[in-house]
Parts: sequence; structure tokens; C-alpha cells
Amino acid sequence: MHELFAENQAFRAHGRLWIEGPADRFLGIGRLELLERIATTGSISRAAKEMGMSYKKAWDLVSSMNTQARQPLVSTQAGGAHGGGAALTEAGAQAVAEFRAMQARFEAFLADETARLYESK
Amino acid sequence: MHELFAENQAFRAHGRLWIEGPADRFLGIGRLELLERIATTGSISRAAKEMGMSYKKAWDLVSSMNTQARQPLVSTQAGGAHGGGAALTEAGAQAVAEFRAMQARFEAFLADETARLYESK
Repeated sequence: MHELFAENQAFRAHGRLWIEGPADRFLGIGRLELLERIATTGSISRAAKEMGMSYKKAWDLVSSMNTQARQPLVSTQAGGAHGGGAALTEAGAQAVAEFRAMQARFEAFLADETARLYESK
Repeated sequence: MHELFAENQAFRAHGRLWIEGPADRFLGIGRLELLERIATTGSISRAAKEMGMSYKKAWDLVSSMNTQARQPLVSTQAGGAHGGGAALTEAGAQAVAEFRAMQARFEAFLADETARLYESK
């Protein structure tokens, strides 16, 4: 396709990938980042803050994932304002690992497509 | 990953694909639809109307594509209010065909990933 481009550089295949459940998105790159930050900070509120996201938004995302999963991806402990600790469950860690792998395959697909943009025909 | 899902059905890999240029998006599914509707209606204004898009928005998208392409993807003829006719150029038809093919490969990738969600390990 490169013969269509005004400049022979810097055009790239880009994209977004997510897993859609029956009623809502289940996992995407934003939810993945939230899970990873919950794992490292041990707190939904700190994870949300790191992402510039409201606590309510983060909680809604966690709630959406927990509701759609057979077993919760995030476990929480009651605490003070904005809750106590939070951690990934085993299911949560598995979801992170598998979605990371899916995302890596997608990035390989995008790299192939970017290369294909510059193939001669 | 299916063992993580609350129900063993209806989870799917979804996504969006586009070609990003140095300064702006070049082609995506919305721009593709706009080009296809310009081809069938012979008019940017009718194509925009069919998509529930303002004429200005459609014109901005066409302008972005034409500016980034070596040769314009859409040719226009001066006319009355909201312009005269518009048509895809040869480059425009090629862009449509190639992005359609790219999108079809992406849909195959998503189907593979959806199948993989339900593989046993």
C-alpha cells in the first residue's frame, strides 16, 4: 500500500484489542493496566490514582470484571475510606497473563501488517 | 481462558484496526465506510448523511486522507451548496481494497483468538 502514502515512512498498522462478554467488555488494555497496578500497589484507590482515574470508575471496572468472571479477579478487604487492601486472585493473575499473551500476539499481527504496507507488489 | 468466565459462552475477542500516519489517522473502519459510501452515492454530502455524520466532519476526514496520500483518494467537482459530485480516484479504490483485505485478516485473527479463549489447556 506504500505507493499510496505521501511519504514512504511512518505509516503503521495500529489497533485495539479486547475481550467482550455477553453484557459488557470483560478485559481490555485499560482493565489490564488496572489489574496490574492493583497487583503492584495492593490498592484499588492507589491503582486508580496512578492511572488518573476516579476511584468510582476503577471500582466499576473491577466490579464488571468480578461479576463476569467465574471467580473474582480482584479480592478486597474492608477498610477505611476508599477501602482496605486489594489483591489479584489466582484467577486475576491468570487473566492478566493470558490477556498479556493475547496482546503480544496482536502486536505481532500489527507488526506483520505494518511490514505488509511496505511490500512491493 | 474459558475457565475464568462466568458462563461458557458469548465471550469474544473484539478489536479495532487502523493505519496511522505521521500526523493523523490515515485509514480506519469509519473512513473506509465513508470512502465506500462516496463511491456509491457520488457525493460527500450524501455519504455523510447516510452515516449520520456532519458534512464538515466528512469533509475533514476526506481532507485528512487526501493530504496524507501521494495522490488524492477522493476527487471533487465544484458545485452548488455542499459541493458538486465526488468520486473515488484509482488510488482511493486501491486504498479501499487493501484496507478491506487488511480488515479481513484482522477478523480472521479475532476469530482465532476467540477460538483460543475456549481451548483447554
